[in-house]
Amino acid sequence: MFQAYDIIVVGAGHAGCEAAAAAANMGSKVLLVTMNMQTIAQMSCNPAMGGIAKGQIVREIDALGGYSGIVSDASMIQFRMLNRSKGPAMWSPRTQNDRMLFAQKWREMLENTPNVDFYQDMVRELVVENNKVTGVVTGLGHTIKAKAVVLTNGTFLNGVIHIGEKRLGGGRVAERAAQGLTEQLVSLGFESDRLKTGTPPRVDGRSLDYSKMEEQKGDEEIGSFSYLDVERPKEQRSCWITYTNQEVHDLLKTGFDRSPMFTGRIEGVGPRYCPSIEDKINRFAERDRHQLFVEPEGWNTVEIYVNGFSTSLPEEVQYEALRKVQGFENVRFFRPGYAIEYDFFPPTQLSYTLETKAIENLFFAGQINGTTGYEEAACQGLMAGINAHQKVINDAPLILKRSEAYIGVLIDDLISKGTQEPYRMFTSRAEFRTLLRQDNADLRLTETSYRMGLATEGRMQKMLKKRREVEEVKTILSTTAMEPAEINPFFESIESASINEKQKLEKIILRPNVQLHDIMKQVPKVEEALKGYEEEAVEQAEIQVKYQVYIDKEKELVNRMSQMENLAIPEHFDYKRIIALGAEAREKLTKAKPRTLGQASRISGINPSDVQILMIYMGR
Amino acid sequence: MFQAYDIIVVGAGHAGCEAAAAAANMGSKVLLVTMNMQTIAQMSCNPAMGGIAKGQIVREIDALGGYSGIVSDASMIQFRMLNRSKGPAMWSPRTQNDRMLFAQKWREMLENTPNVDFYQDMVRELVVENNKVTGVVTGLGHTIKAKAVVLTNGTFLNGVIHIGEKRLGGGRVAERAAQGLTEQLVSLGFESDRLKTGTPPRVDGRSLDYSKMEEQKGDEEIGSFSYLDVERPKEQRSCWITYTNQEVHDLLKTGFDRSPMFTGRIEGVGPRYCPSIEDKINRFAERDRHQLFVEPEGWNTVEIYVNGFSTSLPEEVQYEALRKVQGFENVRFFRPGYAIEYDFFPPTQLSYTLETKAIENLFFAGQINGTTGYEEAACQGLMAGINAHQKVINDAPLILKRSEAYIGVLIDDLISKGTQEPYRMFTSRAEFRTLLRQDNADLRLTETSYRMGLATEGRMQKMLKKRREVEEVKTILSTTAMEPAEINPFFESIESASINEKQKLEKIILRPNVQLHDIMKQVPKVEEALKGYEEEAVEQAEIQVKYQVYIDKEKELVNRMSQMENLAIPEHFDYKRIIALGAEAREKLTKAKPRTLGQASRISGINPSDVQILMIYMGR
Repeated sequence: MFQAYDIIVVGAGHAGCEAAAAAANMGSKVLLVTMNMQTIAQMSCNPAMGGIAKGQIVREIDALGGYSGIVSDASMIQFRMLNRSKGPAMWSPRTQNDRMLFAQKWREMLENTPNVDFYQDMVRELVVENNKVTGVVTGLGHTIKAKAVVLTNGTFLNGVIHIGEKRLGGGRVAERAAQGLTEQLVSLGFESDRLKTGTPPRVDGRSLDYSKMEEQKGDEEIGSFSYLDVERPKEQRSCWITYTNQEVHDLLKTGFDRSPMFTGRIEGVGPRYCPSIEDKINRFAERDRHQLFVEPEGWNTVEIYVNGFSTSLPEEVQYEALRKVQGFENVRFFRPGYAIEYDFFPPTQLSYTLETKAIENLFFAGQINGTTGYEEAACQGLMAGINAHQKVINDAPLILKRSEAYIGVLIDDLISKGTQEPYRMFTSRAEFRTLLRQDNADLRLTETSYRMGLATEGRMQKMLKKRREVEEVKTILSTTAMEPAEINPFFESIESASINEKQKLEKIILRPNVQLHDIMKQVPKVEEALKGYEEEAVEQAEIQVKYQVYIDKEKELVNRMSQMENLAIPEHFDYKRIIALGAEAREKLTKAKPRTLGQASRISGINPSDVQILMIYMGR
Repeated sequence: MFQAYDIIVVGAGHAGCEAAAAAANMGSKVLLVTMNMQTIAQMSCNPAMGGIAKGQIVREIDALGGYSGIVSDASMIQFRMLNRSKGPAMWSPRTQNDRMLFAQKWREMLENTPNVDFYQDMVRELVVENNKVTGVVTGLGHTIKAKAVVLTNGTFLNGVIHIGEKRLGGGRVAERAAQGLTEQLVSLGFESDRLKTGTPPRVDGRSLDYSKMEEQKGDEEIGSFSYLDVERPKEQRSCWITYTNQEVHDLLKTGFDRSPMFTGRIEGVGPRYCPSIEDKINRFAERDRHQLFVEPEGWNTVEIYVNGFSTSLPEEVQYEALRKVQGFENVRFFRPGYAIEYDFFPPTQLSYTLETKAIENLFFAGQINGTTGYEEAACQGLMAGINAHQKVINDAPLILKRSEAYIGVLIDDLISKGTQEPYRMFTSRAEFRTLLRQDNADLRLTETSYRMGLATEGRMQKMLKKRREVEEVKTILSTTAMEPAEINPFFESIESASINEKQKLEKIILRPNVQLHDIMKQVPKVEEALKGYEEEAVEQAEIQVKYQVYIDKEKELVNRMSQMENLAIPEHFDYKRIIALGAEAREKLTKAKPRTLGQASRISGINPSDVQILMIYMGR
């Protein structure tokens, strides 16, 4: 009853949805198998997309022709560009989303992707012949053939939920876990391990006192993830901020002896950078409060996500402690927070395409690779989908470099270093983060994707137009000189020093606090000169001009690094004498004896700054 | 961490949602406990509300102040008034609904009902003290106190799913079953039994060829369930009709030896009047085709519900057979049909308030009572919610008579006769169906509900206005005489005989094929006379005038029946000589020896016509 598919994608979370969409849009016939058609693209944890470093990833997904950006834009209830006060490398878009609308929109997008078929069932086994995957076997006993399989099982593989001393089987609360796959993969030679993640309680917004919290509104100008024009709401919903306090911490501590984290009942390692509240008060004992974000779950619901209060302490402890938070005095729970342990497969078992080394045509994406976060999952799904398709049609894979995309950084980190805890993205992981900005993901990636047949013609044309306009705007900036009389009133208005002789715009905008956008509003000549250009192109040109020094420096570094890649390291190189290297790096390098700088850079525990130090010591 | 509630409602399907809303709106503090907050008000089976006899129930629920009508109106994708060609007693509104929107709207309504709190957890046990329920114990081990508990567990109690020879535990496919409650209730003396229901496959609309099917559009004028003005869509989506054929039947038969129904693997009795396709071809072997309704699951989804093809045959058999249906040649499954067995409690264990006889303050509603159908469940939930509230405040219950509402018929049937198979409503079950029309549920029920504190002031005023207008319109009809010249052109236009002398409107509309609505359009005098009256009031007046004879006859019967209620039956009355009674009735009456006609009427297997025969024999 099933045709033979090109690609079967197992799981319909962020990774699975992107994988299915990408492969299908490139021309593969795809079957998306999910345990429940009603829970496609569920946001299992917080109702938000993007944020620091993650927002950049969503922009990259979009630039490549993935759907996450479009879906997030269409379902947002609030938009904020984080870190606006810092340099543009740090700007990070983030949306608060309507949980139901997000899932609905994803499903709608997938249903409108002609090559995606759906099937509701559990995959309990892979069909493997001669170390090649050729299909799956479902819980109902069907064998479905495919040329490639992408596994995106999330937290469902042997998932166990912990709340205090209670343990429940399940892939998410109230949903079944998936059995059988881990055991088969292990029997095929895969190494598996356990990780842990958690989620905070959901509470009734009607029971909260918002007058005791700080309001956090969305940006006045509603931005977007997608480079396409997605219809976005005109209004936004606010989030709220409140804090834990000493009393809350003391109450939480009363549950520590029953905490599955502290009593050793949870063996899996949790995400260090997205810790539970008990972890935070344990590790940062000196801090007398932690911030909580009170996030609405949608436009019309009273359900609230208590961001920052992830916990697996006993329910009564969660409740009694949360009641001591300002504004939460009368809180009512919809459901408690919990931790979940699940199987993952250390990603060093993958090649750069996300195909497994052991079994041909089998791809892994998302939490199964030890990552955490929707965005991390989605981009892996996208890449696995693209590369599964390329494999099926016997064409070259897409491997993004660390200097091209956060996605490149993420996959390189996973493949070369593995991970001991749920891996999440940070800007600090990217050594070329001035290049990998949220504003230029389209300029970086769309063309590649278009040439591979994923980004659409419309998307490509839009990017080309932007690129053209950016050049034109830059020419205008470099050729338009302002007379003192023309620009000084503007300088006065922002309390910046006047000029005595004419100056080019490209120089003027180098001043701190000077925004082209503001000049345009006040100086008719500039407004006239830039009229008709897309706002995005103007902003892009401004960023390129303002940060040209930094950008050039990083580009230069990229060039040098790529030359270094094959640079041989002397066989008996003595790392111990390089004090600038950390102790860990010295030890690992001494032990691993890499032959090239490229090899050295991919050793687990060696970070980009270590490599740069090595480069210096080797005379470059 | 929980306050003491007035009422805990267990389960958030149609019954649970109505129970929670009703009790809360009457003033009880209600906790709605559901296993999954994401699946509140899921339409587990077909994406439609209403239909024959069921549409009347939804109208009654609405008239009483329940939410089902409002939710259905707001989420409809199509409206049809079934049986429009028959008398108004048979008119039955039906909506096709957007499955996701329906659930979303319900949740929104409940969240906006101030006295309803929510909690996600499984109820595994009741707290019972001295044969009184005083709370529940949840899967996470919480004891939550309440003055009354309403159980609406649907198909979740020890649910087992069957597909061919496969068996899976679950309350719905991909959802867990609920354990523990049945066992406790049985230990408390309840009798439980198994029932079975089923659902058809869901398929991909993109794989169907609609050009081979008949289109079924919605009504041109989009009606409504609610007597309030709910915003409804301007457009509709069509359904499609196709048929099985001999080849389909032959293919289905190849799976009979693996059918859980026929091999005895399913012990529970299925709904005779909503049979599986295998049941239909088995029982009606002479029919060479059965109708299938191809129903979209929502506005934007390609998912299709194949109404009429409910089945638990092996999946491949479902598939191969469905492929032989016109338009389904290339069908792709989203998921197979399946049967589900679950525990129910024969409803003879309840009193008329839906409170259990054995345990005080414990109420049952919905499938747990052996019914099938969303509407049957919803109205029981509503009544259980109302009566649980009345019990809590120690006030008189609401018990609807068979002559007042389909809801009265349903509960009376359940309580007095029990049921051997999933009980669904039919117009034929109502002996007073000319009174119990969909057009007058507000006139019948709103006042009662308003006096009990459920129907709102606005609803009450709307009903009173309608009642007033109906009387005024009837006066106009009885006093306005038409001259031949005024009305004959109209008669000619519909090919009806002309008149020679003037005639009153109330007489004119008695003619078959004459609709007041049409006269108004063509005859300015009539249009003028009825201008300003609500369409609904005009229609109501017309129905009352046209069907007055029948209505009066039934009212008379109601009166006689209520006098009969206490009429004594002689102790040694010989039922055997009354040939007009069926064999079953004679046997049961002889055995039961009822003391009054009322008692006789409530014996299982004795139907209203039997009682009427008895009445005749006893000289009335």
